[in-house]
Amino acid sequence: RTFNVVCIPGDGIGVDITDAATQVLTTLATTFGKFNLKFDTLDWSSKNYKQRGYYAPEGGVEGLKKYDAIYFGAVGWPDVPDHISLWQMILPIRTTLNQYANVRPTRIIPGTVSPLSACAADPALLDWVIVRENSEGEYSGHGGTTPSTAHAAHTVATEVSIFTRVGIERIMRFAFETALHRPRKLLTMVTKSNAQRHGMVLWDAIFYEVAREYEGRVTYDKMLVDAMTVRMVNRPQSLDTIVATNLHADILSDLAAALSGSIGIAPSSNLDPTRAFPSMFEPIHGSAPDIAGQGIANPIGAFWSAAEMVRWLAGADGESNKEGLVEGTGVGDMVEAADCLMQAIANVTEKGVKTKDLGGKSSTKEVTDAVCEEIPKL
Amino acid sequence: RTFNVVCIPGDGIGVDITDAATQVLTTLATTFGKFNLKFDTLDWSSKNYKQRGYYAPEGGVEGLKKYDAIYFGAVGWPDVPDHISLWQMILPIRTTLNQYANVRPTRIIPGTVSPLSACAADPALLDWVIVRENSEGEYSGHGGTTPSTAHAAHTVATEVSIFTRVGIERIMRFAFETALHRPRKLLTMVTKSNAQRHGMVLWDAIFYEVAREYEGRVTYDKMLVDAMTVRMVNRPQSLDTIVATNLHADILSDLAAALSGSIGIAPSSNLDPTRAFPSMFEPIHGSAPDIAGQGIANPIGAFWSAAEMVRWLAGADGESNKEGLVEGTGVGDMVEAADCLMQAIANVTEKGVKTKDLGGKSSTKEVTDAVCEEIPKL
Ligand SMILES: CC(C)[C@H](C(=O)O)[C@@H](O)C(=O)O
Ligand SMILES: CC(C)[C@H](C(=O)O)[C@@H](O)C(=O)O
Repeated sequence: RTFNVVCIPGDGIGVDITDAATQVLTTLATTFGKFNLKFDTLDWSSKNYKQRGYYAPEGGVEGLKKYDAIYFGAVGWPDVPDHISLWQMILPIRTTLNQYANVRPTRIIPGTVSPLSACAADPALLDWVIVRENSEGEYSGHGGTTPSTAHAAHTVATEVSIFTRVGIERIMRFAFETALHRPRKLLTMVTKSNAQRHGMVLWDAIFYEVAREYEGRVTYDKMLVDAMTVRMVNRPQSLDTIVATNLHADILSDLAAALSGSIGIAPSSNLDPTRAFPSMFEPIHGSAPDIAGQGIANPIGAFWSAAEMVRWLAGADGESNKEGLVEGTGVGDMVEAADCLMQAIANVTEKGVKTKDLGGKSSTKEVTDAVCEEIPKL
Repeated sequence: RTFNVVCIPGDGIGVDITDAATQVLTTLATTFGKFNLKFDTLDWSSKNYKQRGYYAPEGGVEGLKKYDAIYFGAVGWPDVPDHISLWQMILPIRTTLNQYANVRPTRIIPGTVSPLSACAADPALLDWVIVRENSEGEYSGHGGTTPSTAHAAHTVATEVSIFTRVGIERIMRFAFETALHRPRKLLTMVTKSNAQRHGMVLWDAIFYEVAREYEGRVTYDKMLVDAMTVRMVNRPQSLDTIVATNLHADILSDLAAALSGSIGIAPSSNLDPTRAFPSMFEPIHGSAPDIAGQGIANPIGAFWSAAEMVRWLAGADGESNKEGLVEGTGVGDMVEAADCLMQAIANVTEKGVKTKDLGGKSSTKEVTDAVCEEIPKL
């Protein structure tokens, strides 16, 4: 079975780590022998935007639909305003391809040290999956500025967050299903319904509605987003699966990555749980202009994202369950391959083959080669 | 000089800690002898809401205008939905009384231990003041739900954040003035203008506009809110004064309190910088129903808030500067009194007279009595 993967390296270290990821993925496929990965690459970058005036060409995002998966590096460069680079590329991909569930696992992997004393002593305390609503809410893009010049004394701007029953219900169901497959089966829902009294109140109501379907199978509770940061810092062991809005989860997942020891290791899967369209896999870190092109970027987040992609593709021939989510670990040895890649990463970082941000001295290439050498041994 | 302070103890531990704070404030005024504090108390609580159907009576919030300051405990109780208790009391007070600047200092005080290894070893690494926009943005309350029942299949709800030039400009100016009075004179502005492309873009533009007035006097930089959590965890020493929107600063200030070692010690000053109306002082913690009435609540956050109130009242006879901000440390020995209270707190916690949340064994009363005994000695 051959899977067609399209790579969008994007900007800065996105290029370095996408190279590293395809090298590791190729080694993985060759070693296992039962599945194939074919890569195309698209040069949708800020550099090209400056030259041509666009990131994706006309129809470009639609064209992604023919692939089995998308591997994304990073986007953003100092000479293009961030809201332009993002609204021209990553945000339209997420919404056009129905990638409404963004999944962000966080663990303390061997060879990394948590900045929290408690977790430095016992890394097992922190083991979370954050499920982020990825299609609406605070990222709807609605709103405006009147008068359009910021310089008028009476200028007013709005940001309109949109929450739909459909959007909330499907992410809640996805989150409960995710929790159901975790060892502790515990789901914490995050909200700010004390201060935001419309959309957030609907968010809460639908959470409790969906919760009834999982009564007795999943344990659940509710946190205000501000208090949630306190709980993450003080009682990491009390959390397991977390569901939050687009903005809240954006913030909480960066915090989670920092608490786990490095923002350079965390993966982010943008999933279309119906599998009608390809899903997209990216490390959560950005393009890091300050270290771009120096060959020192940490590729571990890219490898972990690659492992998540392989795990997702393993379900490609699965059947839709009654929740509309496709299960099944069908194809080849792909689940084993994903596990193998995660083990290879752990062995390499444990040995101290690490980039500078993790306290090591190795280059991107050295870490990549070490992981490629480890894979066939496992 | 006598100041009239109105206390709103509110719910749960709000009552315990307001009692403790007035006891300490009375001791402070008696010891210094040059200023007087007279206290009124209003029973605006969730219990009364259940009985009477309202928190503040008709005209109640307007009635606060006759006081010099408001001391607030906490609001919120399990039998009243949070969005009702907050929108009936604390949020209208903040907006009606023009308390557009919410100031939240965070430090690691003696006797507390940061959960971050680096800050546990060197507490001086973390010394921040968070300036929160307190009158608009994500807390505007605009939006709605259509159809109004959550149960329709096509229900949509919105939350509308409103950002005005007036609102942004004044908080930026306040933040730069705050930074100017801090030893390091460094201001970090937080935004999410990459994903939120209307109000947040205006927020950025006005920040840079106001920054020009402080060029060479204040150093400044910009962070995305998600990346900001990473910087707070990894490089606390790189931050000093921080300015953020109503929601972002709500989240970041709880995180800050957690990183400093306890949410039970952090104060929150809701200021009307024009001094047209009274300002309001409250600890940032909530009503904590689980420990209410047991006499074990940590009163340190309440004392620190009380110190900030005294410091603010010291400026009561000051003159408005050209930014419309009143400066001056005029009245009596009030700045010294505020410093004395902070020192008394430090001496007491350092000795180990602490509540359970700080790893101690003392009751609210024991900590309060210890602080009252310390004050005359300083
Ligand atoms: C790049 C940006 C739009 C993005 C987001 O806010 O979603 C990033 O922070 C992320 O978390 O993937
Ligand atoms: C009680 C609630 C409305 C409040 C807020 O979100 O402003 C609280 O969290 C705070 O930080 O003061």
